[in-house]
Amino acid sequence: MCVPGCQETVMRRLSRRGFFKGLGAAGAGAAVFTAFPPPRPAIAQGASFSRVVDLTHALGPDFPTFFGKPQLSMERNAAFDKDGYNMFTWTIVEHTGTHLDAPIHFSADGVDASSIGADQLVVPLAVVDIKEKAASDTDYQLTPDDLKTWEAANGDLPNGGCVAMNSGWARYVTGEKFRNTDPEGRMHFPGFHVEAAMYMMEKGVVGMAVDTLSLDFGASEDFATHYAWLPSGRWGVECVANLDDVPATGATFVLGGPKIKGASGGPSRVFALV
Amino acid sequence: MCVPGCQETVMRRLSRRGFFKGLGAAGAGAAVFTAFPPPRPAIAQGASFSRVVDLTHALGPDFPTFFGKPQLSMERNAAFDKDGYNMFTWTIVEHTGTHLDAPIHFSADGVDASSIGADQLVVPLAVVDIKEKAASDTDYQLTPDDLKTWEAANGDLPNGGCVAMNSGWARYVTGEKFRNTDPEGRMHFPGFHVEAAMYMMEKGVVGMAVDTLSLDFGASEDFATHYAWLPSGRWGVECVANLDDVPATGATFVLGGPKIKGASGGPSRVFALV
Repeated sequence: MCVPGCQETVMRRLSRRGFFKGLGAAGAGAAVFTAFPPPRPAIAQGASFSRVVDLTHALGPDFPTFFGKPQLSMERNAAFDKDGYNMFTWTIVEHTGTHLDAPIHFSADGVDASSIGADQLVVPLAVVDIKEKAASDTDYQLTPDDLKTWEAANGDLPNGGCVAMNSGWARYVTGEKFRNTDPEGRMHFPGFHVEAAMYMMEKGVVGMAVDTLSLDFGASEDFATHYAWLPSGRWGVECVANLDDVPATGATFVLGGPKIKGASGGPSRVFALV
Repeated sequence: MCVPGCQETVMRRLSRRGFFKGLGAAGAGAAVFTAFPPPRPAIAQGASFSRVVDLTHALGPDFPTFFGKPQLSMERNAAFDKDGYNMFTWTIVEHTGTHLDAPIHFSADGVDASSIGADQLVVPLAVVDIKEKAASDTDYQLTPDDLKTWEAANGDLPNGGCVAMNSGWARYVTGEKFRNTDPEGRMHFPGFHVEAAMYMMEKGVVGMAVDTLSLDFGASEDFATHYAWLPSGRWGVECVANLDDVPATGATFVLGGPKIKGASGGPSRVFALV
């Protein structure tokens, strides 16, 4: 997932942008976390809704994965006919299905899945539609300009909220196009550009959601967006579904992430309250 | 979890109450499902909130379980220092921590965890406080009279909603008192009486939440409440936390259950929107 030296590459790149000026920069995570104000909840102003949209894909052992191999198996512990009840044990890699990336996923000492405050898991949602661009360029990266276009139509990105990329990729989840590998095995699907991540941090956004397998675009070699975003104390959600059913602004994102101590993320139930 | 013959016992008991009159009663599940109208969502009338309460316990390998043995282990797949990111694989029994009981948990062909509609997972919440009774009787079962007392103070139980039992047991989650076993190994903690479950079905309630390890009281030998409630197409949540922070009425229950195909339930993130 990370090639040797990629953190150093990202750090150098970010340093050139001046974000780490004057910092010891023991690591990209600590530096970014210091450079931006910590995220704060924005829902206290209140919210209302009349409809629930399930943003979660149904997950089975055949669900596509970043690494290309199955990441879920289920063993039956009890069967109704014999035991009077049904029960399974799962063996599951954390980053499977519609799932959370906690800050600790890409940092040495970031917050784990169980330690993200509930007030940062129920937040205002902005949905940025890049379907047309992604249709013509499978390596498209959502840019600050895309965010500014969204803001021109909808107002500021939500401070304390979540920004979701709707690239149209959710519709490919049952086929080869979801991973979209080339003959060399490199994947091709859209993601957030690291400069968009920086812009969102400046705006106080706390969550980043994508309808693909990675916050970064599939062909990324340095995971620049992961390394900029997660170590700053912010979370990500990958493989989100049904974003077409959610308005560009006004909905509330509910991230039902696992509350497992030490977890770097995990399968989650994600809703939009509209 | 189920002793031989317990389904038959429950069926006979329920039959005496006249619920299955004229039915072939191939199983308690099918019969109850026919005897009561299917649950319907009630949130369409709209809801608003200004505060999020996390009703989920943090889960680790030492979390108390119904069977008394650990039900979660975590294996590290990647470490930040070496690999540039952190990742684990979990091996976990479905019914661990704050978790969902799907209808299929106690039925031959009920709905699995992935098939419960999102509109049945975000619903109005009623919290019934039986802390005083549970403090003086660890085998206390929440009764229809407790529900009627709640209704006298708060209005009808929410059609399409969830009823949560606040027995005060969540505070014991880190100690022996949570399972509270006697010298014979039988557990002693409160639960819903099967007649309360019947009353809730008549009222159109869809979800039942408890702050203990089981919908039934700990000393139950027949799991009467499980067998009456789950096969009717309704869900349960066990090991709920922080019910003291939620009002008796007016909150919205959000059940972030796993959307895993075939699952009989599983660890969930549960919120109250207040």
